Amino acid sequence: MSDINRFDDLADFAADQISALLGLSARLEQHPEPEALKGKVLSLLFLNPSLRTLASFQASMTRLGGGAFVISPEMSIHGLETRPGIVMDGAAAEHVREAVPVIASYGDALGLRAFAERRDLVEDLEDREYRNLAELVSTPLINMESAINHPCQSLADWKTLDDLGISERGGKFVLSWAYHPSALPLAVPSATMQMAAMRGMDVTVLRPDGFELPPLVMDKARLLAERSGGSIRETDDRSEAMEGAHVLYAKSWSSTRHYGDKHSDYQLRNRHEDWCVAEAWFQQAAADCRFMHCLPVRRNVVVSEAVLDGPRSVVVAEARNRMWVQMAVLYAMLGPGL
Amino acid sequence: MSDINRFDDLADFAADQISALLGLSARLEQHPEPEALKGKVLSLLFLNPSLRTLASFQASMTRLGGGAFVISPEMSIHGLETRPGIVMDGAAAEHVREAVPVIASYGDALGLRAFAERRDLVEDLEDREYRNLAELVSTPLINMESAINHPCQSLADWKTLDDLGISERGGKFVLSWAYHPSALPLAVPSATMQMAAMRGMDVTVLRPDGFELPPLVMDKARLLAERSGGSIRETDDRSEAMEGAHVLYAKSWSSTRHYGDKHSDYQLRNRHEDWCVAEAWFQQAAADCRFMHCLPVRRNVVVSEAVLDGPRSVVVAEARNRMWVQMAVLYAMLGPGL
Amino acid sequence: MSDINRFDDLADFAADQISALLGLSARLEQHPEPEALKGKVLSLLFLNPSLRTLASFQASMTRLGGGAFVISPEMSIHGLETRPGIVMDGAAAEHVREAVPVIASYGDALGLRAFAERRDLVEDLEDREYRNLAELVSTPLINMESAINHPCQSLADWKTLDDLGISERGGKFVLSWAYHPSALPLAVPSATMQMAAMRGMDVTVLRPDGFELPPLVMDKARLLAERSGGSIRETDDRSEAMEGAHVLYAKSWSSTRHYGDKHSDYQLRNRHEDWCVAEAWFQQAAADCRFMHCLPVRRNVVVSEAVLDGPRSVVVAEARNRMWVQMAVLYAMLGPGL
Repeated sequence: MSDINRFDDLADFAADQISALLGLSARLEQHPEPEALKGKVLSLLFLNPSLRTLASFQASMTRLGGGAFVISPEMSIHGLETRPGIVMDGAAAEHVREAVPVIASYGDALGLRAFAERRDLVEDLEDREYRNLAELVSTPLINMESAINHPCQSLADWKTLDDLGISERGGKFVLSWAYHPSALPLAVPSATMQMAAMRGMDVTVLRPDGFELPPLVMDKARLLAERSGGSIRETDDRSEAMEGAHVLYAKSWSSTRHYGDKHSDYQLRNRHEDWCVAEAWFQQAAADCRFMHCLPVRRNVVVSEAVLDGPRSVVVAEARNRMWVQMAVLYAMLGPGL
Repeated sequence: MSDINRFDDLADFAADQISALLGLSARLEQHPEPEALKGKVLSLLFLNPSLRTLASFQASMTRLGGGAFVISPEMSIHGLETRPGIVMDGAAAEHVREAVPVIASYGDALGLRAFAERRDLVEDLEDREYRNLAELVSTPLINMESAINHPCQSLADWKTLDDLGISERGGKFVLSWAYHPSALPLAVPSATMQMAAMRGMDVTVLRPDGFELPPLVMDKARLLAERSGGSIRETDDRSEAMEGAHVLYAKSWSSTRHYGDKHSDYQLRNRHEDWCVAEAWFQQAAADCRFMHCLPVRRNVVVSEAVLDGPRSVVVAEARNRMWVQMAVLYAMLGPGL
Repeated sequence: MSDINRFDDLADFAADQISALLGLSARLEQHPEPEALKGKVLSLLFLNPSLRTLASFQASMTRLGGGAFVISPEMSIHGLETRPGIVMDGAAAEHVREAVPVIASYGDALGLRAFAERRDLVEDLEDREYRNLAELVSTPLINMESAINHPCQSLADWKTLDDLGISERGGKFVLSWAYHPSALPLAVPSATMQMAAMRGMDVTVLRPDGFELPPLVMDKARLLAERSGGSIRETDDRSEAMEGAHVLYAKSWSSTRHYGDKHSDYQLRNRHEDWCVAEAWFQQAAADCRFMHCLPVRRNVVVSEAVLDGPRSVVVAEARNRMWVQMAVLYAMLGPGL
């Protein structure tokens, strides 16, 4: 099996590659290999804030015997300019066209985070900013969350489902919209739905009217479900969705209908402050139905404290698995390979 | 001897354990062991700013062949919420209840800094914030300064006294309050007095009226002094305090009397701007009496430039010893052990 | 040949030392030595912002098996005081007189960045701030850009010229002033001219009236050119300067005439907004004349996008070479030696 050069999207990988990555991840968790990436460097470029990703990638490289350095825009003299063709006579003293290839050139691979602009849905669905930046990079590249994808989170979530022994075929996975005061990106819900579809699960997207995920995202997930023997459906009926569920994965996201229009999105979302996951949501679910979230999560807004601190919640395990799966990706990219 | 799992307070350790840590520290200073912590990760979580601690812990891990990553609250999207039971509909997007276990989970040990709130003396004396956060951590833990303790600083100061050949029994240690424009925490003076008491020294606390250390802190130090054969006394008479002193350790701190009331503290402390350590303070002291301070120190406010830059001052050696003692603690926690 | 203890100025090194460093650099680029600096620590102190230097030094240490930590002034509680003899009753809680030796003491070497104050030309030409700080350091020291020097950039540029096969003797090197909205330091143009002179090239400084480099800087470059068989001339005539040029190195800098007087400098520089390097500048140059710049560079202000993104531009290679030459310096300082 060929090694990995780009980790942009879980859907770029065949089932046996995912399986090999998860196997490698479990092996590295059990049997440390502190010399595997000796002298290797991971460049980390964050165009948006980070906590888990920042920490887990640095820890991943250290555990494999290499190291990482971190660049965020405030470290340049006056931030990084991204617009093409611009006359740079304003505040920004550096353009991504130089900064990105230079930062990449110091590493054996680059991790890149570039969130959705949330102005134009088509641009974000095409992941235009991430793709534009990726074209400037000649080293191996890892998507640390782009406008529409978050493959490291999804692979970690997959590992978490495996660790919990939740069935692939026949496993019932509910991705539920939840209330949040801001219009958040589509990256995590899109990547999560796709991951569960690739895993062969029966996926239900539970969301209020107006918060349908975009057709392009749904179509991609349906195609992946067909291949794997899973299924995708949508509903705004909580009881129907939660019937027999093995997993409830909560996440807030923007209204596709009002994408880029914060005011209209706000008016729509504010009718749904009651979409805060509570124990009552689990009445029709499997007895040991789990609660998942990618973090950070707002307590008593997205989910009640009782659920988040209770036995259903596996949010810390999900976050920890970021490290183990990223180690596998790095090992496959820069080390002995898959 | 059992290895170390928590490094919260020097008083948790027996004399022979302290002695073993100091011996290990000296050995690592002389004989590098750059493979001892190969592939090991130290998570560093600073809820307050740092310079020496930040630098010395990273250097410690590198020298032992491992690595560290640093998280401070501004790295989360909107800071970290600490209040229990809160509805998180404000600025903070993440709660310490998730952030702390997640950050800890990426490392083999966690270093945690959480300064005194300086609102409620009882809370701070109980080290409530540090203890609350520590309950969220399942890895080994190191106190990088809490409301009432700073064991890494104290162990480094102990090593500095040893390096200088200053007597344990019969050594005269003066901890003196000094003027500073702000009402600073009690952590360093409390930990310092306790360290000198544990070392068996004759300790004098020199401070103006109103700046007595809290009875709980004094009582603990007296108990430790009784065990080690040392002694504790308090005075506001400089000549009496400095008579025959081998060490003057200067530090400013809040008025216990006005704890949490900045205005009253300010009015009281402002009468004592003359408490700036000067060469004249040493007239009754031993000829080679040393000047110590944990840094950072305000020149010509806490101590005169002449003393700070003169031959008595060992402040840089103290700071450097942070690294050697922390290496010993990490080695005992994560490596071959004590 | 003796190993390196200070890397302050390229002019401190003999031709055979430079040659050995460049050879070592090329060797490390081809043949990694990930154990050479095992357990070694580089302290990095930035008194000014950085991107390339920050990233490349961390990557350099990791590639050699050691590590680095980074301190910038905002990490101290209230910034670092630099003034001698001051009563520190203001915002700053720490003085460089303690901070610098302490930070240095955690490392096996210190990298130090201290830009020009740009108030007093004599002070900056004497590199007074860097020299004052350097006196506080007892470990090996690397200049990461001071008021008047940038030896790491210059050695990287030298390597870039070698990599491109540009002749030493007879090679025509044009250092050109370019427009920029701010009055930038003299460090890079001074160090660049000196580097090209040491390399034995025929150097032309192209600049508008009022932007002559200071006589001290010119005199030093002429002396170095005499030794190496190179030459130095100055002109404001672009056609004359570019005739047969093999390299155009662009950089903006302050007017020596109005040094420290931003308003007068601004009035003078604003007449020269047309000093933006464009393809037309290369009409009289050698066909494959290269464009160099140290970065960051303002697009369509200092240089046109067409030149910067075109085949003449080697700016990313220059930046990447920072890493390889710094690895050679660190290896010579802390490892097996030159």
